[in-house]
Amino acid sequence: MDKDTFVVIMAGGVGSRFWPASRNSQPKQFLDILGVGKSLIQMTYERSLNIVPASNIFVITNANYVDQVAEHLPELPAENIISEPARKNTGPCVAYISFHIQAICSNAMILLLPSDHMISNEMVFVRSLAKAIQFIDAEGGIMTLGMQAHHANTGYGYIQTGPQIEGKNIYKVATFKEKPDAQTAQEYIDSGDFVWNAGIFLFKAGDILHQFSVFAPEIYQTLYGENIYGSPEEEAFINERYPQVTSISIDYAIMEKSSNIYCMPMDIGWSDLGTWKSLFELQAKDEDEIVTNVKPENYYIEGATGLLLQLPKGKKAVISGVDNLLIVDTNDVLMIWPKDREQEIKQVKDEVASNWNLE
Amino acid sequence: MDKDTFVVIMAGGVGSRFWPASRNSQPKQFLDILGVGKSLIQMTYERSLNIVPASNIFVITNANYVDQVAEHLPELPAENIISEPARKNTGPCVAYISFHIQAICSNAMILLLPSDHMISNEMVFVRSLAKAIQFIDAEGGIMTLGMQAHHANTGYGYIQTGPQIEGKNIYKVATFKEKPDAQTAQEYIDSGDFVWNAGIFLFKAGDILHQFSVFAPEIYQTLYGENIYGSPEEEAFINERYPQVTSISIDYAIMEKSSNIYCMPMDIGWSDLGTWKSLFELQAKDEDEIVTNVKPENYYIEGATGLLLQLPKGKKAVISGVDNLLIVDTNDVLMIWPKDREQEIKQVKDEVASNWNLE
Repeated sequence: MDKDTFVVIMAGGVGSRFWPASRNSQPKQFLDILGVGKSLIQMTYERSLNIVPASNIFVITNANYVDQVAEHLPELPAENIISEPARKNTGPCVAYISFHIQAICSNAMILLLPSDHMISNEMVFVRSLAKAIQFIDAEGGIMTLGMQAHHANTGYGYIQTGPQIEGKNIYKVATFKEKPDAQTAQEYIDSGDFVWNAGIFLFKAGDILHQFSVFAPEIYQTLYGENIYGSPEEEAFINERYPQVTSISIDYAIMEKSSNIYCMPMDIGWSDLGTWKSLFELQAKDEDEIVTNVKPENYYIEGATGLLLQLPKGKKAVISGVDNLLIVDTNDVLMIWPKDREQEIKQVKDEVASNWNLE
Repeated sequence: MDKDTFVVIMAGGVGSRFWPASRNSQPKQFLDILGVGKSLIQMTYERSLNIVPASNIFVITNANYVDQVAEHLPELPAENIISEPARKNTGPCVAYISFHIQAICSNAMILLLPSDHMISNEMVFVRSLAKAIQFIDAEGGIMTLGMQAHHANTGYGYIQTGPQIEGKNIYKVATFKEKPDAQTAQEYIDSGDFVWNAGIFLFKAGDILHQFSVFAPEIYQTLYGENIYGSPEEEAFINERYPQVTSISIDYAIMEKSSNIYCMPMDIGWSDLGTWKSLFELQAKDEDEIVTNVKPENYYIEGATGLLLQLPKGKKAVISGVDNLLIVDTNDVLMIWPKDREQEIKQVKDEVASNWNLE
């Protein structure tokens, strides 16, 4: 790829739906939730190395997580970890990192990646991306990567595609849709016009900043600084200004307002790994439907089916006589909960996590 | 009590039925299996302090557990921890400790206590014991404490009582019976002549050693040493001789053969805490039948009943949708197993524990 291409990994989320495995102090991106020996952010980083060298990878994260990012990505240059002094959602985050990178490279192309998603087919991802970069480099605007919708998922946002760009697997975006109810989701699927919004965006720094100046001028003006970015003053400037901006997602701030947005549909085995159940459904299962991060030689399970079992590294399990459960053992809490009632976990967490110091 | 009275706590057992909580390296007596903040051996030691001062309490245990005993009982004089250089069951153990204590006090009265049992009503225990000591001091022989049998338990040995000693709650022992089958156990209960054998015995050191010389002469002769016990030569002597003796229980070696054995029945809320299920049945339960060593503020359990939940100290639990399970979490293994199939656990242990280094 071109030396002007940068990957920005957004790693400020708290992933509260994976409680009790995820915590404020250790959100989902730092967990080896797939049991592959790597955290999600490590997998995202390695994926990014297929696109650009380490020097062109930036991670933007909450100030609290800077040290954890550095631990997980020891080969990432320290100056490529960008700290947000406050939680302001993805809108201000994108504006900040775009100012920062533009100061390094005035013609920068930025690929924005969530840090905690899964992509099984990385070859297709990288190949498609090359075409998307070529297109945006020539045409400008913002490219969204649209994930082929395999079922009527109510946990994802959707993108409705409009007219196709002639001769290319690229469409103008008609509309962005919030998470739908089940019936609406089914209508989306049946229409054939909708893809899942993966939150993966591609744009030139200059273009997106222009969009901010038009559609989110308050963010633009608050974070704009003449000769600030890349200078020794940047940190103090951001520490003062960033907490002042409105908290808003990049989708609300820009994507849903701008007319210059494209979508490239692809089928790359993507999941946002949004819930325990999505993790269970996604993973390869044996005949007993046991999905676990435990190595087979480390568990003895008989007469038990439909389990999602997550244990601390090296821990053994002996299980029988239970079905369709989430069994999540961290070192400080054991959760055993019916898989089809996982939506209740958030409520339980709200009730107990604060008292237990396990938020 | 008299300065000639000694309590001997036998703490060499491995308690394998409480796997995975109990291990060879940390058997049951060192666990806080009742969730009271004290290990079973600590509870037994404190119970013994109601009978004699610390100087008159001895713990005899396998060489491997000497350090653990010292950790659990920091106030016990170090010289009162007696080490068995080999596992030889309770027969040789009693002979050895009797020789040892007789050298300290030629007229010693010894109360032999297992280290890992539960006694709820300690007042009755201590009061009854005073009478038993008085009787054996006057009459000689061996007193067994018989536990009132509340149900046809097939996990206990039984004692059939013979003629009553006039004016006393003391009987001659007719026979000792091994663990019976269910029908036989019921016949025992129905007859009214049987009590549970708790393995708690009272005798003068000189008397029991005489019994050894008659009924187990090989043990007596191998362990007999003129002026050895209490001398600097004792340790080397025992290290040489002890491994040579036959492994046999005190019940087989002496109790079932001697005719001079008495039984004092009592009802003191005793249990040998032999299995997870016995622990469950013994403990106070709330309406959901949750028995746990976890403090109520540290668990959130709803829509779940009949659980025996054992977690490491300080660990929290969130549980729903499961019934009648043993849930045992140590830091290195999680076991979830149907309570009414606990007898299978030994088999599973045999299959996995060695590979997992969790024996």
